[in-house]
Amino acid sequence: MKALVTGGAGFLGSHLCRRLLVDGYEVTALDNLYTGSRRNIDQLLAHPAFSFRERDVADPIDGEFDEIYNLACPASPPHYQRDSVMTVRTCVLGILNIMELAEKTGAKVMHASTSEIYGDSLVYPQNERYWGNVNTIGLRSCYDEGKRCAETICADYRRQHGVDVRMIRIFNTYGPNMHPEDGRVVSNFIIEALKGEDLTVYGDGSQTRSFQYCTDLIRAMRLYMEKPRTEIDAFFAAQGLEAPVLNLGNPSEWTILELAREVLRQIPESKSRLVFRPLPSDDPKHRKPDIALAKALLGWEPEVPLAAGLAQTIAYFESVLG
Amino acid sequence: MKALVTGGAGFLGSHLCRRLLVDGYEVTALDNLYTGSRRNIDQLLAHPAFSFRERDVADPIDGEFDEIYNLACPASPPHYQRDSVMTVRTCVLGILNIMELAEKTGAKVMHASTSEIYGDSLVYPQNERYWGNVNTIGLRSCYDEGKRCAETICADYRRQHGVDVRMIRIFNTYGPNMHPEDGRVVSNFIIEALKGEDLTVYGDGSQTRSFQYCTDLIRAMRLYMEKPRTEIDAFFAAQGLEAPVLNLGNPSEWTILELAREVLRQIPESKSRLVFRPLPSDDPKHRKPDIALAKALLGWEPEVPLAAGLAQTIAYFESVLG
Repeated sequence: MKALVTGGAGFLGSHLCRRLLVDGYEVTALDNLYTGSRRNIDQLLAHPAFSFRERDVADPIDGEFDEIYNLACPASPPHYQRDSVMTVRTCVLGILNIMELAEKTGAKVMHASTSEIYGDSLVYPQNERYWGNVNTIGLRSCYDEGKRCAETICADYRRQHGVDVRMIRIFNTYGPNMHPEDGRVVSNFIIEALKGEDLTVYGDGSQTRSFQYCTDLIRAMRLYMEKPRTEIDAFFAAQGLEAPVLNLGNPSEWTILELAREVLRQIPESKSRLVFRPLPSDDPKHRKPDIALAKALLGWEPEVPLAAGLAQTIAYFESVLG
Repeated sequence: MKALVTGGAGFLGSHLCRRLLVDGYEVTALDNLYTGSRRNIDQLLAHPAFSFRERDVADPIDGEFDEIYNLACPASPPHYQRDSVMTVRTCVLGILNIMELAEKTGAKVMHASTSEIYGDSLVYPQNERYWGNVNTIGLRSCYDEGKRCAETICADYRRQHGVDVRMIRIFNTYGPNMHPEDGRVVSNFIIEALKGEDLTVYGDGSQTRSFQYCTDLIRAMRLYMEKPRTEIDAFFAAQGLEAPVLNLGNPSEWTILELAREVLRQIPESKSRLVFRPLPSDDPKHRKPDIALAKALLGWEPEVPLAAGLAQTIAYFESVLG
């Protein structure tokens, strides 16, 4: 079996490539190395069944693959806002290229969407039926709307051209191979703690977040991709959903203060202290996925506890900052 | 001055081309004639300052223009759902091509967005700050999300590359040159009345809609495009809007029953009767634009009364069906 992983040198893409190699696939990783990195795939390059194409997903793609996983897009605000036009092009032209290839070759596709398509959510927790609350013209729109439009393109290619595409909406995920400048709270806290810089907590730190360890996500992706199409179609039709979309995240809630303390507990030599700053007015009180559909369809739920996942992630950043 | 009008052989595009010719422009109309028609530009083709390119807006565009008006996209559900992949490609690739051309040549751009970006609106009437309520994977998504993403692309090209782009969100508009199979209520009623077929009213017909006559819209577009950029920037910044987006529609409300009766009054020879059918569960009770921003910026409001606009439209459809 041959698989193409776009964004294959990125955080999640590199974990997926590794897993597919273990599962016996021939794996082609495609990445323009804009936020992905050769370091993430260094060990994979020696594998005889692995190959790497340094290319942009927005350019036409050739080849024949049984499965295509589309993970190509900068996903953290500092990265996706650096060149917002490039971000929206990556989202939209990327999936158009992949859908064209899939239509021509019959490849099965998994498209990585995001919890950000729910935007500044008016419901909590979000399930897959929620349509979202997103600004079309703001600073985050290049990612949020680009990803929304990519879902539309997937749904339409499926309906109109019969492409077998399965979508996932990924919630906050962390682990080794994260970009050091990702800018979100897990990597920020770990890097600050390792450097002996203060950890900044906004408000009193009682706002909660959910953190999914990368291998839990990859496991769900593989389970989902292995399901027969007939089962996928029947499941989502029974749910009244017009296309297969599945939230994947960890519903356990941690307060930001608990996260900061756990990071410091695991790095006892750190000289960092906690500092408290005023809470930005638009900081959401909670963020938590509803994963009932993934549980029902895949019999899946996250297994890696935060303490264990953090230990792996801290070890990784120690080696990177080394 | 040179202008490019994409969708120039369509309903609104053909009116705009005519108006620009009157205003002394050299006008190039670009249209793939998917829903546009040669009949709409027949009289313009004889004008020495008018030229026509039969091309798709999703293909790269060359030439130098002072102003570009992007009106290219099937806009009625039966048309935009016929080939939904083509619709989303038209929305997104079209505006990407135009933005690239504008960035290269310094052209000023007016992008036609739509009230459909508000989706199944939770507020009434909608003003430009409302973010909308749109399904990413449904049957209407190709148009709604394609148009949302096009707004994002405009806003990002403006911020990142300095393109002078002005967006309009067009509400229900009618008039001569409408496609006979547009499928929306004004053309449906007129054509049914002219053919002597029954006019179907859903529910008791007390639900209200707003109808903007085409020349009112074209007048607003020209006023908006003539404004100096500095004034545009200052106005929208003062409104707290991240990009220039302006609702254009007619806020007068008519019940569907009033519309049907007015059409029959104007076609006294019609043998049509009113028939009542059950109201679909998702039929909105009201639809009405908030045009306070357009009034404030342009000193504009719609002037053509429904009776007068209907008379013109009926005369047009008589000649087409003739």
